[in-house]
Amino acid sequence: MNEEPRSRAQRRADTEQRLATDVDVWVASASADGVPYLVPLSFDWDGEALLIATGAESPTGRNLAGNRTVRLALGLVRDVVMIDGDVEVLEMDGVSQGTGDRFAQRSGFDPRTLTSHYRWFRITPRTVQAWREENELRGRNLMREGEWLQ
Amino acid sequence: MNEEPRSRAQRRADTEQRLATDVDVWVASASADGVPYLVPLSFDWDGEALLIATGAESPTGRNLAGNRTVRLALGLVRDVVMIDGDVEVLEMDGVSQGTGDRFAQRSGFDPRTLTSHYRWFRITPRTVQAWREENELRGRNLMREGEWLQ
Repeated sequence: MNEEPRSRAQRRADTEQRLATDVDVWVASASADGVPYLVPLSFDWDGEALLIATGAESPTGRNLAGNRTVRLALGLVRDVVMIDGDVEVLEMDGVSQGTGDRFAQRSGFDPRTLTSHYRWFRITPRTVQAWREENELRGRNLMREGEWLQ
Repeated sequence: MNEEPRSRAQRRADTEQRLATDVDVWVASASADGVPYLVPLSFDWDGEALLIATGAESPTGRNLAGNRTVRLALGLVRDVVMIDGDVEVLEMDGVSQGTGDRFAQRSGFDPRTLTSHYRWFRITPRTVQAWREENELRGRNLMREGEWLQ
């Protein structure tokens, strides 16, 4: 159960693997008056930022457009990657055709085809942490202020 | 991949199974000024409420004591149970010996033995939803205003 703690390099490799291949991410947001919201959404990763899409008037859509801050979780409760990020809000025509195609292929869901008002939310990680069990809490910081730690 | 949507009765049975046997839950909270926080924590379930424990001065501890509202996720991104709940804040001596023992046994973690200031947070579900894939979004509501739907 408690394996040896992974090195930072291994955690970063595992994290980048998840960013490259996982389909869904937990998205935690909050309203201006402090009501939390949480939902799993499909995402894409271009090496620098995560891209998600959700309804402009959904709780997540309203919260992210409101305060531009998000906390994400990838993976499982005992093999997590936690990301705090800054949010860029984009209308459907605000990303390139290729970026939209890539998202649709990865997620199996193309928000550009919907009649309801969806938006893209481009999330640039500010801090990244990864841990499995308690023995990995030390050393969990992988990125600070947008820079991978060496 | 897309199995037939489960009946409400099946979803409730699966949800109660998770509440009875899962060890960790995703806990989303928010600060008064709308900064989201998200972390996995161990929990216990007594049939009516979830019990978690975390540091009084941790982000989750401060957020829950501040606004007494929480959003929880159990399970996996494609097999989720989402719970919005009301939070009761309790000091370590605020639950019975048996309740504390039960939590420690289930989680493998006894917050009563810590020297740092931990609190219990007793979370009573207000709404419960469960779904796997998109075809289960319809019918995802299992509890409203604290009452299981029939």
